[in-house]
Amino acid sequence: MEILLTNDDGIYAEGIYRLACALRKAGNVTVVAPDTQRSAVGHAITLTDPLRVTRACRDGKFFGYAASGTPADCVKLGIKAIMKKRPDLVVSGINLGGNQAYNILYSGTVSGATEGALLGIPSMAVSLDTFVKPDFRPAAAFALKLAGRVKRKGLPAGTLLNVNLPNLPAGKLRGVRVTTQSRTSFNDWFDKRTDPHGNTYYWMTGDYKPKDPDEASDLNALRAGYVSVTPIQFDLTDYKFITELQNWDIKL
Amino acid sequence: MEILLTNDDGIYAEGIYRLACALRKAGNVTVVAPDTQRSAVGHAITLTDPLRVTRACRDGKFFGYAASGTPADCVKLGIKAIMKKRPDLVVSGINLGGNQAYNILYSGTVSGATEGALLGIPSMAVSLDTFVKPDFRPAAAFALKLAGRVKRKGLPAGTLLNVNLPNLPAGKLRGVRVTTQSRTSFNDWFDKRTDPHGNTYYWMTGDYKPKDPDEASDLNALRAGYVSVTPIQFDLTDYKFITELQNWDIKL
Repeated sequence: MEILLTNDDGIYAEGIYRLACALRKAGNVTVVAPDTQRSAVGHAITLTDPLRVTRACRDGKFFGYAASGTPADCVKLGIKAIMKKRPDLVVSGINLGGNQAYNILYSGTVSGATEGALLGIPSMAVSLDTFVKPDFRPAAAFALKLAGRVKRKGLPAGTLLNVNLPNLPAGKLRGVRVTTQSRTSFNDWFDKRTDPHGNTYYWMTGDYKPKDPDEASDLNALRAGYVSVTPIQFDLTDYKFITELQNWDIKL
Repeated sequence: MEILLTNDDGIYAEGIYRLACALRKAGNVTVVAPDTQRSAVGHAITLTDPLRVTRACRDGKFFGYAASGTPADCVKLGIKAIMKKRPDLVVSGINLGGNQAYNILYSGTVSGATEGALLGIPSMAVSLDTFVKPDFRPAAAFALKLAGRVKRKGLPAGTLLNVNLPNLPAGKLRGVRVTTQSRTSFNDWFDKRTDPHGNTYYWMTGDYKPKDPDEASDLNALRAGYVSVTPIQFDLTDYKFITELQNWDIKL
């Protein structure tokens, strides 16, 4: 199996290293990842600037291609300019930090996998729901297992898997749940501060531990110690509202 | 009516100026927009850096607040740090270039309006489907009309309107269609080039004029000379695939 691997924490992050090591048991892994951290870039692509690609080593050996772009750029580059064969699977991660609820809209990790799905390749994003003391090994092992399953079963065109794990040792994980994207919003705000030169600046911060009334959500699975696997897709049309909007009878 | 206006072409772009002038007929317009062009930033937000806000003038008068962030940052800043009253409407645009089909995933313009919808405010994105000789006036006039309609009718929680206009004079526009997001992909690729120092670089390009078999799509409406209005939402869960995925019976 040919696997294209990317992330948004950058090619030198620990998460992508653990994931590459695991996925090599399933096939040929080509890493194309941002040369620096690109978190919260959303589904950005680089149109106005050229992209540079360099060879990156880890442990003194060739590890993959470092690109001066976003995760979506890396997936496009991997498929359209770097890999000789079209990949069977695109994997993005392992992200340091969960990508659940509306967070997935901001997520570079998810956007890497989305780009794979848009290009017609089965894809998945893998994130670890912590910013402290991450243990990536259970996530890497689960991603390997799920990769095999996706290869055998396939995914519907345009659908990808968004996988999140709580930061627990393998023996403490309670199981796997197929989940929905939580519709719960995070509560964020700006710290207004003054720099050493007397100028105002703003820094976004927030409380990222909301509750969710929806039992089936990714947020609730993670809180309860389960791996969450959410199938997502990118036709954003609100079909339920189409008829009512037609009844507005909007004219020029 | 209190209106928050943003865009992704930057606060000094023509599109946002035309839109501000039009929307002032409907209420108080607060402009919070990126200080430079931020196209194709997707739904990025700025977490790792502070945000600066400066006052921007046009025609020798105060026009709005220029922020060092993305359109989504600007909407958050506007609502949570700058505006004294919560806006009744968030508008993003007028973008130079269409935001239809899967383009909306990459679009800073749409992400500005999305952020408004996530924060519970009726929101719309407005784009003009051209990169040459834009005439923003019909789009500005239509946005003003639609803003009034949205104010009266409201929008479902989490739903926003993605509006695109072909670049035609008002008299040549054929009407308004409520549309779906086209599922047609654009064909893009990389030019591989060599810089003056002998180094390789890549530049993304493509053919952005695909056909779409779906008569109701935004792409087809624009091609036929109609304004397209697509209701979109941000629960990305692929509900149709949930049951099948549960049947995979994934274990740790």
